[in-house]
Amino acid sequence: MTLQRASASKARTDAIPGNILFRKIAIIGVRLLGGSLARALRRSGQRARIVGYGRNHLDLQRAIDLGVIDGFETRLQSAVEDADMIVIAVPVGAIDGILREMRPYLAPDAVITDVGSTKHGVVAAAREQLGDAMAAFVPGHPIAGDERRGVEASRADLFDGRVVLLTPVAETRPLALARVRALWEAAGAQVAEMDPDRHDQILAATSHLPHVLAYALVDTLARMDDSEEIFRYAAGGFRDFTRIASSDPVMWRDICLANGPRILETLTQYRAGLDELGALIAQANGEGLVDLFKRAKAVRDRNVKK
Amino acid sequence: MTLQRASASKARTDAIPGNILFRKIAIIGVRLLGGSLARALRRSGQRARIVGYGRNHLDLQRAIDLGVIDGFETRLQSAVEDADMIVIAVPVGAIDGILREMRPYLAPDAVITDVGSTKHGVVAAAREQLGDAMAAFVPGHPIAGDERRGVEASRADLFDGRVVLLTPVAETRPLALARVRALWEAAGAQVAEMDPDRHDQILAATSHLPHVLAYALVDTLARMDDSEEIFRYAAGGFRDFTRIASSDPVMWRDICLANGPRILETLTQYRAGLDELGALIAQANGEGLVDLFKRAKAVRDRNVKK
Repeated sequence: MTLQRASASKARTDAIPGNILFRKIAIIGVRLLGGSLARALRRSGQRARIVGYGRNHLDLQRAIDLGVIDGFETRLQSAVEDADMIVIAVPVGAIDGILREMRPYLAPDAVITDVGSTKHGVVAAAREQLGDAMAAFVPGHPIAGDERRGVEASRADLFDGRVVLLTPVAETRPLALARVRALWEAAGAQVAEMDPDRHDQILAATSHLPHVLAYALVDTLARMDDSEEIFRYAAGGFRDFTRIASSDPVMWRDICLANGPRILETLTQYRAGLDELGALIAQANGEGLVDLFKRAKAVRDRNVKK
Repeated sequence: MTLQRASASKARTDAIPGNILFRKIAIIGVRLLGGSLARALRRSGQRARIVGYGRNHLDLQRAIDLGVIDGFETRLQSAVEDADMIVIAVPVGAIDGILREMRPYLAPDAVITDVGSTKHGVVAAAREQLGDAMAAFVPGHPIAGDERRGVEASRADLFDGRVVLLTPVAETRPLALARVRALWEAAGAQVAEMDPDRHDQILAATSHLPHVLAYALVDTLARMDDSEEIFRYAAGGFRDFTRIASSDPVMWRDICLANGPRILETLTQYRAGLDELGALIAQANGEGLVDLFKRAKAVRDRNVKK
């Protein structure tokens, strides 16, 4: 399956003349997403030099040892100068500072994208920090991930068949958009475009709210008197349901701060739904319960891939 | 792995003289749990005749075709008479009627158990329906499952390494308890004992509440105006988080009816936890958010098996 997918994305890349999409790709933050993108591009036959940037020398050396990147820099200037593709793969809250710091060193043909889970705030930060270079910025968000983090968890097939949402704005240069699209397609992803605010609204419902619910559940149970016994008898359903509560706390703090109003809006709707279900239980309304459960099951079975 | 586990449970069964644990095992309801138990017992070398009971002739024939059971009955009397082990594997709400109907036909050495997800109500129903035969009844609950149902989803390794909670009461005869314990150990499970009310309290937190939360989430999103687009961009985290919302609606109606007060109690605690988290988001309290997320992640990583 993976091999088949790999050759499919290779075919797409090969269709680009000479297979030289990029000269130097700077990956700012070589963890799960940044590392997986580097691996996927390498798998596709991409010949660009892939340079990682980060603060931790040992982590970056590990990325080289794993064959994820060709080299690394711990000074942002050295990482981005000469790069014609810059991928910012740090938590949302750190993007603003990165953009400000890199601005003076951007090459004339540099294209910049990010992988942040919220887009409204990133667009605002980019407008403020990039000035004219805003035309070269293509906000993006790969809908893929894993509760594990770090370059050790990175893998070449993370984006295979996954959707990457790009949220270009009025200033975005069409060529910049085309190049970021080509980048993600080479990595095996399907690219779709969307308005940044619409993105934040949809992701609040499908990703941010579930994370909030899972974190709240684990925290609530942990604070019960008999939490040790409770966790001892947790089964597979609980494991799946709470997997996302093992996600990176800093990343999720940043998402909650960046998309707070949207998350609170969906949380309000969710609370109303939960109250209705609670009322059905309190009333021992079997018919109402089975109707709701059937409806939810049908929607999930129809809409969510196995 | 499976083979190794299989031979481990075979070794346990072989330790019982002559490997004849049971004469005739009646499985009342041959779906995921009943079917998997039959398969696991067969795998262990159990020589008893395994007879299925159900209402749907075609489903039962399918179970025979799949090699799950040796024969079937659509009259409960024929299924239970001569059986020295009766396993009731129907939704919780149907157990009461099954117990009442089978009572006149029980063999003197019959042992009865169930796989219901709640135990308080089952114990009360058994006391009312079984009379003296209550001594032969061992309430049970395998902490294993799958969102799929039906005999097609049954498998011999479903209980391997899983915990089966038995909740014997004052009347329970020790020999009956020992035989049900041997049954589950032969099927590959680890048996633990617990008070029925304690069982319902713990399972409300680890299983019933998560199901309620997942059903409420899918239903809430489905009722949003843009639900189609929302589900289109749902990713792996959402898939895992909502998997349990694909569970059997009738089974979960019965659980909510049988364990309503306990579920509502944990729901109240959960709502308080969710309100706290919502307040942190509303206040844009980054420190509070990261503390909560770190705490939850640490608890989950420590307590929940990968």
